[in-house]
Amino acid sequence: MQFSALQIATILNGRLEGNPDTRVHVISKIEEAGEGSLSFIANPKYEEFLYRTKASILIINEDLRLTKPVEATLIRVKDAYGSFALLLEKYNHILSEQKSHLSGIQQPSFIAPTAVLGKNIYVGAFSYIGEDAKIGDNVQIYPGSYIGDGVQIGKDSIIFAGVKVYHHCVLGKNVIIHAGTVIGSDGFGFAPQQDGNYKKVPQIGNVVVEDDVEIGANTAIDRATIGSTIIHKGVKLDNLIQIAHNVEIGQNTVIAAQTGISGSTKVGKNCMLGGQVGLVGHIHIADGTRINAQSGLSKSIAEPNAALNGTPAFDYKSSLKSQAIFRNLPELEKRVKELESLIKQLILEKERI
Amino acid sequence: MQFSALQIATILNGRLEGNPDTRVHVISKIEEAGEGSLSFIANPKYEEFLYRTKASILIINEDLRLTKPVEATLIRVKDAYGSFALLLEKYNHILSEQKSHLSGIQQPSFIAPTAVLGKNIYVGAFSYIGEDAKIGDNVQIYPGSYIGDGVQIGKDSIIFAGVKVYHHCVLGKNVIIHAGTVIGSDGFGFAPQQDGNYKKVPQIGNVVVEDDVEIGANTAIDRATIGSTIIHKGVKLDNLIQIAHNVEIGQNTVIAAQTGISGSTKVGKNCMLGGQVGLVGHIHIADGTRINAQSGLSKSIAEPNAALNGTPAFDYKSSLKSQAIFRNLPELEKRVKELESLIKQLILEKERI
Amino acid sequence: MQFSALQIATILNGRLEGNPDTRVHVISKIEEAGEGSLSFIANPKYEEFLYRTKASILIINEDLRLTKPVEATLIRVKDAYGSFALLLEKYNHILSEQKSHLSGIQQPSFIAPTAVLGKNIYVGAFSYIGEDAKIGDNVQIYPGSYIGDGVQIGKDSIIFAGVKVYHHCVLGKNVIIHAGTVIGSDGFGFAPQQDGNYKKVPQIGNVVVEDDVEIGANTAIDRATIGSTIIHKGVKLDNLIQIAHNVEIGQNTVIAAQTGISGSTKVGKNCMLGGQVGLVGHIHIADGTRINAQSGLSKSIAEPNAALNGTPAFDYKSSLKSQAIFRNLPELEKRVKELESLIKQLILEKERI
Repeated sequence: MQFSALQIATILNGRLEGNPDTRVHVISKIEEAGEGSLSFIANPKYEEFLYRTKASILIINEDLRLTKPVEATLIRVKDAYGSFALLLEKYNHILSEQKSHLSGIQQPSFIAPTAVLGKNIYVGAFSYIGEDAKIGDNVQIYPGSYIGDGVQIGKDSIIFAGVKVYHHCVLGKNVIIHAGTVIGSDGFGFAPQQDGNYKKVPQIGNVVVEDDVEIGANTAIDRATIGSTIIHKGVKLDNLIQIAHNVEIGQNTVIAAQTGISGSTKVGKNCMLGGQVGLVGHIHIADGTRINAQSGLSKSIAEPNAALNGTPAFDYKSSLKSQAIFRNLPELEKRVKELESLIKQLILEKERI
Repeated sequence: MQFSALQIATILNGRLEGNPDTRVHVISKIEEAGEGSLSFIANPKYEEFLYRTKASILIINEDLRLTKPVEATLIRVKDAYGSFALLLEKYNHILSEQKSHLSGIQQPSFIAPTAVLGKNIYVGAFSYIGEDAKIGDNVQIYPGSYIGDGVQIGKDSIIFAGVKVYHHCVLGKNVIIHAGTVIGSDGFGFAPQQDGNYKKVPQIGNVVVEDDVEIGANTAIDRATIGSTIIHKGVKLDNLIQIAHNVEIGQNTVIAAQTGISGSTKVGKNCMLGGQVGLVGHIHIADGTRINAQSGLSKSIAEPNAALNGTPAFDYKSSLKSQAIFRNLPELEKRVKELESLIKQLILEKERI
Repeated sequence: MQFSALQIATILNGRLEGNPDTRVHVISKIEEAGEGSLSFIANPKYEEFLYRTKASILIINEDLRLTKPVEATLIRVKDAYGSFALLLEKYNHILSEQKSHLSGIQQPSFIAPTAVLGKNIYVGAFSYIGEDAKIGDNVQIYPGSYIGDGVQIGKDSIIFAGVKVYHHCVLGKNVIIHAGTVIGSDGFGFAPQQDGNYKKVPQIGNVVVEDDVEIGANTAIDRATIGSTIIHKGVKLDNLIQIAHNVEIGQNTVIAAQTGISGSTKVGKNCMLGGQVGLVGHIHIADGTRINAQSGLSKSIAEPNAALNGTPAFDYKSSLKSQAIFRNLPELEKRVKELESLIKQLILEKERI
């Protein structure tokens, strides 16, 4: 498959600089792009490659200023990353048309007699679908998945290999769940007893995952004690994330890998949480909050669109200042020591007078 | 199913305030409770709901003081959370009586000819039980689980979907293991070689999980290099926890999600570890130690019942003071700068005299 | 099986102190070693056991100085841990010769007709091998694993139970992957849209795992957006680690549990990363870098062999000094307060004059 610069510029509605007949046959990372490659630069960190890449065509942001001559044919667009994503999607679509489409029920698999299956679904070998489960049209369930009793999965969703969904959880339309993820395990609730033992609190709620949610690999989302743990529409969760019982994640919020959210905490809409962040239980995070990686939040955030950092987290910019002084604490202590010695001297001299 | 306030108060041995004939048909979270709901308030953070909930019956702590009139019928008990757990348990019991009980061997499954199975067990489809494995009475093994050669599982235990237990590990009675958890993977032991390569140290020990332990989803517990990694009686582990080789966790200790414990470390009895805590290897943590979320411990804790926080962790209350000053470090540095300028001025003036 | 001290000393090329005829029949941890046990001491923390262990034979470092008489027969070697590893390996080898060797294709399993299988392989029950997959000689695939379309696995590799390898990923020779690990899940890439939604960026790359790599349990390694996420030769990854898309880990680098590495970051050769470390995306870490547990790196490290600590991480030794002062921040603030009061007094007195 070959594309010309003119074709690509037309697809992306971009401005062409260079030869419209330049042809590419492969998509590459900028670091590895050779002749015949199409690549892109969105992150300023990679601008250095602009002047030495062998790529034949480059997609760049329309406001990027050239400081030296560039050999590649350029296509300028508003959002280079988004445009590149669009191209990848078209490319991916052509690829998947070429390969045989996944469909049908592979054997052996286990489908309970009361399960209701939609049209055109794929059920991989060794997958288990429990009693009264409802699987929507075009759903793909990869091999070795477990779909418990009464689970509902909306149409066009993809469940990758070895996903486990406990009984009575509800997944929306166009949901993607990556391999190894567990949805609906019991919340971590134990009532302490007089003798030091703990008594399990039954977890009779479920998990609700709304439409257009994507969840990474080996993540764990606990069912609610009562009611539902809710992942709202359009949320994107990365790998190895912990979502405790009765948590609620607001629409279009994005959470990076290894972050953990404790029981009953509510995260607002359009938030961005970095990796390895921790949130204590029973707090509320306002819409649009951004939390830096490895931060720990112990209190609710009431004002929308705040940026936070640190453990315990506070205002992002202030925290950077505190961190800078932390690095120089030995120096600060030395300054205090010197002041102490100067003062002591002044007092001694005064007494001598 | 309907219950009256009098019935509930009788079950819980609680004190009734209000109409003994008030009836409920559903159990709800306090935030979502409507008419006909039974709910509870244990955490003071939720007391605000007391005066505006639509719940028909509320379970509260006996010492909770009302500051305004309350519409719901109240049932006062010593421990509202524990009593609520008790009710949920009874409710759950009735529910599970209603649904068909899991039992029998689903097909296809793989049971080695030398495996010994107890009475009344459930083995889900696509589960694997290895040579010489011993499965106790009433054990439930959900679909897609792997029980290696020589593994023992005590009676009444529940192994959820897709759990992997490596060869020769031993699980006690009444153990619950949630989906995706791995027990008995090799410890992380490699001997550095002269040429920069690492040589694997064979891990010939196992994991022992004692009675009444519950382990969350996607947790990993490594087998011992030699001897056993031991999770003692009544321990509760949350999701995505890392337990390294030769670790020992004392009786009734509770550990929250994403915490990691390095090789050969011993944690005492009745400890409480928050989420995302890290412990280095080869240390001992005294009984009753409480460690705040995201803390990191690099040294043994000899004195029981200490509360710790921070990385590296130290006394909880002191660490809060240090954290408060950390937030204001720029202010502290400004004060030092002012002192320096004042001192400089004093010295200059003195010299002028 | 019994071994004499002389036999062991000969195998290890060690220096014998004591009775060459002392016999052992079991290998034990030093804390648990009884009569007839062989044990070792490598970590100075365990030297206390030297004088009170009941072990019959002890392997110790050649430079360890005795301060009291020792009852056990000693075998002195250059590297006690490495020698012990060697012995364990021989012991393990004998054990595995004794037990039946895993081989053959257990039923039921799913092997696509176009998959190419090497000689002498083991495929456990409920394992899935996709179209065009290539499995090398002597490979062991434990039960319930998923090997996607076009995956290649080099000879002598071991895939433990329930591992999921997505399509077109490439694993080298002598690779070990522990249970529950996911290789090749989609990278976390989403392009923000005007309306607040996110559009998935297709991930058309793969993961390449080179020879002699070992990967722990429940770890997740994402496929590249384009190109490959690469784990180079001899790398050792622990449990529950997150490796994002387009990351590259250099030869013989060792990474402890629960660490997370963000997209496109390159880690050099021979690095050592502690547990729960976090690295932001798009940075380069020089060869031989050591990063302390729970640290967070937000910038590239250009100089090789640095030791780092903290969030954000800086020089290890300096960070320990800052941490020590952090613990005493309330004290430092008190000193500043006293200085302020002394200065104020001096100024007042001066004005009075």
